[in-house]
Amino acid sequence: MAQKPSIPKGTRDFGQQEMAERNYIFDTIRSVFKTYGYAQIDTPAMENLSTLLGKYGDEGDKLLFRILNSGDAFSGIDYESFRTEGDAYNSKALSLKVCEKGLRYDLTVPFARFVVQHQNEISFPFKRYQIQPVWRADRPQKGRYREFYQCDVDVIGSKSQVNELELVQIIDRVFKLLDVRVLIKINNRKVLTGLAEICGFPDKVVDITVAIDKLDKVGLDAVKEEMLGKGLTPEAVAVLEPVLLLSGTDAEKIAAMRKLMGGGSASGAVSETGLKGLDELEELFGLIDAAGIASDVEIDLSLARGLNYYTGAIFEVKALDFAIGSICGGGRYDNLTGIFGLPDMSGVGVSFGADRIYDVLKGLDKFPAGLKSATRVLFANMGSSELLYVLSVARALREAGVAVEVYPDSAKLKKQFDYADRKSIPFLSINGESEMQAGVVQLKNLATGEQKAFSKDDTAAILAFLG
Amino acid sequence: MAQKPSIPKGTRDFGQQEMAERNYIFDTIRSVFKTYGYAQIDTPAMENLSTLLGKYGDEGDKLLFRILNSGDAFSGIDYESFRTEGDAYNSKALSLKVCEKGLRYDLTVPFARFVVQHQNEISFPFKRYQIQPVWRADRPQKGRYREFYQCDVDVIGSKSQVNELELVQIIDRVFKLLDVRVLIKINNRKVLTGLAEICGFPDKVVDITVAIDKLDKVGLDAVKEEMLGKGLTPEAVAVLEPVLLLSGTDAEKIAAMRKLMGGGSASGAVSETGLKGLDELEELFGLIDAAGIASDVEIDLSLARGLNYYTGAIFEVKALDFAIGSICGGGRYDNLTGIFGLPDMSGVGVSFGADRIYDVLKGLDKFPAGLKSATRVLFANMGSSELLYVLSVARALREAGVAVEVYPDSAKLKKQFDYADRKSIPFLSINGESEMQAGVVQLKNLATGEQKAFSKDDTAAILAFLG
Repeated sequence: MAQKPSIPKGTRDFGQQEMAERNYIFDTIRSVFKTYGYAQIDTPAMENLSTLLGKYGDEGDKLLFRILNSGDAFSGIDYESFRTEGDAYNSKALSLKVCEKGLRYDLTVPFARFVVQHQNEISFPFKRYQIQPVWRADRPQKGRYREFYQCDVDVIGSKSQVNELELVQIIDRVFKLLDVRVLIKINNRKVLTGLAEICGFPDKVVDITVAIDKLDKVGLDAVKEEMLGKGLTPEAVAVLEPVLLLSGTDAEKIAAMRKLMGGGSASGAVSETGLKGLDELEELFGLIDAAGIASDVEIDLSLARGLNYYTGAIFEVKALDFAIGSICGGGRYDNLTGIFGLPDMSGVGVSFGADRIYDVLKGLDKFPAGLKSATRVLFANMGSSELLYVLSVARALREAGVAVEVYPDSAKLKKQFDYADRKSIPFLSINGESEMQAGVVQLKNLATGEQKAFSKDDTAAILAFLG
Repeated sequence: MAQKPSIPKGTRDFGQQEMAERNYIFDTIRSVFKTYGYAQIDTPAMENLSTLLGKYGDEGDKLLFRILNSGDAFSGIDYESFRTEGDAYNSKALSLKVCEKGLRYDLTVPFARFVVQHQNEISFPFKRYQIQPVWRADRPQKGRYREFYQCDVDVIGSKSQVNELELVQIIDRVFKLLDVRVLIKINNRKVLTGLAEICGFPDKVVDITVAIDKLDKVGLDAVKEEMLGKGLTPEAVAVLEPVLLLSGTDAEKIAAMRKLMGGGSASGAVSETGLKGLDELEELFGLIDAAGIASDVEIDLSLARGLNYYTGAIFEVKALDFAIGSICGGGRYDNLTGIFGLPDMSGVGVSFGADRIYDVLKGLDKFPAGLKSATRVLFANMGSSELLYVLSVARALREAGVAVEVYPDSAKLKKQFDYADRKSIPFLSINGESEMQAGVVQLKNLATGEQKAFSKDDTAAILAFLG
């Protein structure tokens, strides 16, 4: 009558091998965040639905996991009043009656909520990072999960583009340490606003942005068609077309855009916002050039990113040697905390996509050797007196920080050996009567076959042999 | 119209100081787990309710946080059939209709589920640790939260008490590293079963266990009264009373218990199970004596722990210098995975209570200095050309693993200095025109006032000064 165990669709167990690999990614990212003075915070998995609703659009509201109120959640409700027809009910309205809390959907809204709630305890500019799971009731599919980790790093309370520079440096350093070649693409949201202005549809900046964002995927004609479909005139599309065709160096792109924004487009319109965006881009590239970055960095004027709260620089990172979507992205926002009552707090941040980075490292075979087992030595169990003999050696090695295991049962040696093999433990130590009498321990390197005996108290020599 | 932000009751935000302190605890525990060859796994926050229900008793079922099914959760339900009276409804039954998933309540049941589900990929004995939050819809109060972390370490697939020994060694090492003196109390569940047998109420082992467990808190008379209240006869209580009064060394306690279990009690009954439990206790204390433990370890025959799945050794750890409940505990279980279809898998594990350990370290002022800020140096921002000058120094230090910050805005020095002060950053570096011309950086130790100039490329000398 036992249940066959399973986990909810879209969620995952991480076994020891995968955990070690994921921790390698998280530890690398964390180590870089730290050297730039970012400090970790954690927020609860559950937030009040009032904090979450309306922040991710209607589609996002639907994807929130809601938590049933504890206790007697269902009484006192007039179900008839929620009936729509037949046995169908208004689930949206009913869920608000019985659920006050929801699971975190991203780390950005909880961060904004945290900043506002704790504003009097925080030293601004506030540099925080956060590595936690988020949950979305999306349809699960390959590479899309209902529970996944985000690694966000943000600074809030400073308008200086030194912050943007540091984020680019952080991205550069993380991927250098992970040994993945990347292209960092940069744009500025004000330039996108400028484009909407010079083509005469300032209210269509989102539609234009969404269309331009697809240029890489669908090509020029499809982008133009989408813009026309969104109500832009052929004349407006003609104003935007040169932007979609821009090429050359970053400096050349900026110069060409300056002309367009300054009245040189087919419409002759001037956009102050667009010019400001170009100034910002130029300043940021100046800082990047001066600081020196190993990764490729380029202006991509078709880069839009979907999120509406960006107001300045926007970033996106692609792996050069592995085909997958963006593996890191973000941007500057001027009013993230406004909705919670703290206006005029400018910030900038990026988010590293741990799952995709994992796929890239797997695909390029970039995980370091030795992640499979932290254990360096298996001491075989040859019976109770031999056991007591090796326990003290094991203890000394452990206190020196080396991971060792003592096989707990005095099983057949073949079984113990198989265990070392399956766990990829590199050294085996078998000690019997004669070793005990001589006061030595045998150590065998299972890869090379080299075997040596050491005085049991000579921890230094043993450590040296273990490498 | 801004919302005043808040978080659900019983949950917590962890700011940078508290996170650093908590990470110190987690990192210490993790580092010890690793040296014993335990590997980390993660399981999803959400489990199917079928996995969770019935595993924690009726009370536990009520405390599960349930997750509303996504999509149209409420349609197709005949609400009338769930009505009990007036506008009251059967919330328990209704919640099963609209919720298939729940949040993890502990790490033990997900671990059992993991072992069964992945049994063909696992090398037994399987040594795993898991550090993740759990959620319980308990009434929040001081020290009791609705979201809190558990740190569990278990080995499954080995009956050897070498595993128990290693857990005791792990406990000893963790608290030594945390600089907290502890008492490790040990008992054996079979001894408790034996007590129920010799007093003639073998089916009342749970009641007897629960009563005995309270001896420390409520005293002898209240324990006896509780046993009588549970249906034990005065004669049965008289059989048990000598056990509650036991004192002396561990060896003396075991010897006295051996007499009672062997037919020497007032009932004259013999318990084979009880004698087996005493053999196990004796073996474990022999191992502990041979291996050598710095902490105090003692047999506590009144130690029961509430959980019913224990079948052998049981552990509980108390801080000696700080009054708080148990800070770590666990035991051996012989059939944890049986409910999921994998019988006869014996395991043993303990769980470290991170929140209480945090309170102990706070109370005893045992957190190391320097956790407040990882940042060692703040480079003041004196304007754009000075900024570019210090960026390269900052970069070299960061690549050497030192956390440094460059103040992003060219604000008044007072403001920048205050920032360093509030973040407890120990070194300040102010560099203007003259430093740039001389190619040096100034570094000031804010605690001692000592100030020195270094060649800007002499990273080694700078690192030495930073200590």
